[in-house]
Amino acid sequence: MTPICLVNGLEGAALDPLDRGLQYGDGVFRTLRVDNGKPRWWDEQLAKLATDASHLAMAWPEASAWRADLANLAGRLSGGVLKLLLTRGSAARGYHPPKAASPTRILIYDPTPLMSDAWPSAGLNVRICDLRLGAQPRLAGIKHLNRLENVMARAEWSDPDTHEGLLRDEAGRVISGVMSNVFLWQGGCLRTPRLDRCGVAGVTRARLLARAATAGYRVEQCELDRDDVLAAEEIMLTNSLIGLRRVACLAERTWPEPVVSPRLKFLLDA
Amino acid sequence: MTPICLVNGLEGAALDPLDRGLQYGDGVFRTLRVDNGKPRWWDEQLAKLATDASHLAMAWPEASAWRADLANLAGRLSGGVLKLLLTRGSAARGYHPPKAASPTRILIYDPTPLMSDAWPSAGLNVRICDLRLGAQPRLAGIKHLNRLENVMARAEWSDPDTHEGLLRDEAGRVISGVMSNVFLWQGGCLRTPRLDRCGVAGVTRARLLARAATAGYRVEQCELDRDDVLAAEEIMLTNSLIGLRRVACLAERTWPEPVVSPRLKFLLDA
Repeated sequence: MTPICLVNGLEGAALDPLDRGLQYGDGVFRTLRVDNGKPRWWDEQLAKLATDASHLAMAWPEASAWRADLANLAGRLSGGVLKLLLTRGSAARGYHPPKAASPTRILIYDPTPLMSDAWPSAGLNVRICDLRLGAQPRLAGIKHLNRLENVMARAEWSDPDTHEGLLRDEAGRVISGVMSNVFLWQGGCLRTPRLDRCGVAGVTRARLLARAATAGYRVEQCELDRDDVLAAEEIMLTNSLIGLRRVACLAERTWPEPVVSPRLKFLLDA
Repeated sequence: MTPICLVNGLEGAALDPLDRGLQYGDGVFRTLRVDNGKPRWWDEQLAKLATDASHLAMAWPEASAWRADLANLAGRLSGGVLKLLLTRGSAARGYHPPKAASPTRILIYDPTPLMSDAWPSAGLNVRICDLRLGAQPRLAGIKHLNRLENVMARAEWSDPDTHEGLLRDEAGRVISGVMSNVFLWQGGCLRTPRLDRCGVAGVTRARLLARAATAGYRVEQCELDRDDVLAAEEIMLTNSLIGLRRVACLAERTWPEPVVSPRLKFLLDA
């Protein structure tokens, strides 16, 4: 099943090799789950894309442009993944971000069924990655196109029965999964790593934090190391594609039974 | 003057939006100076591109492919800049680097005269950037497509009379310029920052280190902070486009006269 690509609204259009998205990774993106033709959490995803673009001082397309792209695909969306990318556009050579550049808007719809949907409902099998994330407070939290650390970390395993890897920073603090955010349940508190020095602050993470707090859960963004994670009563991973999934096995420890994950999943999806 | 782009040898071909070079910055590049139709230091540049690709475990095109691209441009090269990019190619969604991906080879020839050629021969005016480079030993030295730090640092100034900015790491060690490597002359020794935690180890830097050592200079790769730089008898910047240029002014200090830069420039260019 071939993905459908719209570049600035044009189906099948190709990308200018001079685009700064390619030259420097100068852009931002979002990945949305599509079920029954409907992209999940569209408004929240678009708002986060706009926030990330603004952190990089990128121009933002007309508000209606993305919605027009989506309308372009009407009737052709079933399930799969929708990816929205915004780059700073094409420009003359050099790192200096041009004032006049017109951003490039890319929408990719991939109807391929999600591999993660076949992951065991009993829980995921997770490893701890060797690669340590570098700290860059100026980029922390932003889902930008500089993703080589994720590529290298993901290259550490190819066993399909390992579903995700946990990433730590240089000091050993657990930051996230390669493609997900991490939550721990411990002592009646829902804890997730602070992402002020590295990592991506996902829309699903923000949504869970907000909904759990509203529902009366104690919620904390803090520093967590490997021992904190291994001592958790339950470990959960979130992203837009998997929603919330519990971890069954990590570094030879196992968590056979759910604790709060069913309730938190319900809060998230509601 | 519009740049000429060859994508996998095809002139004017566009890039697949699914290319991992765009999606993740999953690729490497080189920038070459072209004078009188001849790209400078072609063999060294291509060797470094291959080394960088191999560090990212990317496939390498047939050795003849790049040379064929260059032959494609025969008679059309005058002066300007040649940029060679190699990405991991197009692939299905996900960070995991696919075994079977065929790399994308991009050659861009930009005949626009180099702005840096108009910079004052008496020396450059340099600032110290606020942005601190993040440490990532696994990527240090490699000229990869994840260049948002450089973009953000270069955005710190737009005065055309400021020619370059120096970048430090979190600990305050000077690492490089935004688009160049840094050399100091101090106490009879040529010193340049170690690049084992961040920064790009340029071809011009390697060439100068080798030639200066061969010519009997004491040469050292070491840790250098802001005070070391300001205390230097002479500061020099190198890259493939500017060759070697001396700094005349940095953080309100000035260096009115050359010390060793003319001899080192001669060694480099010979």
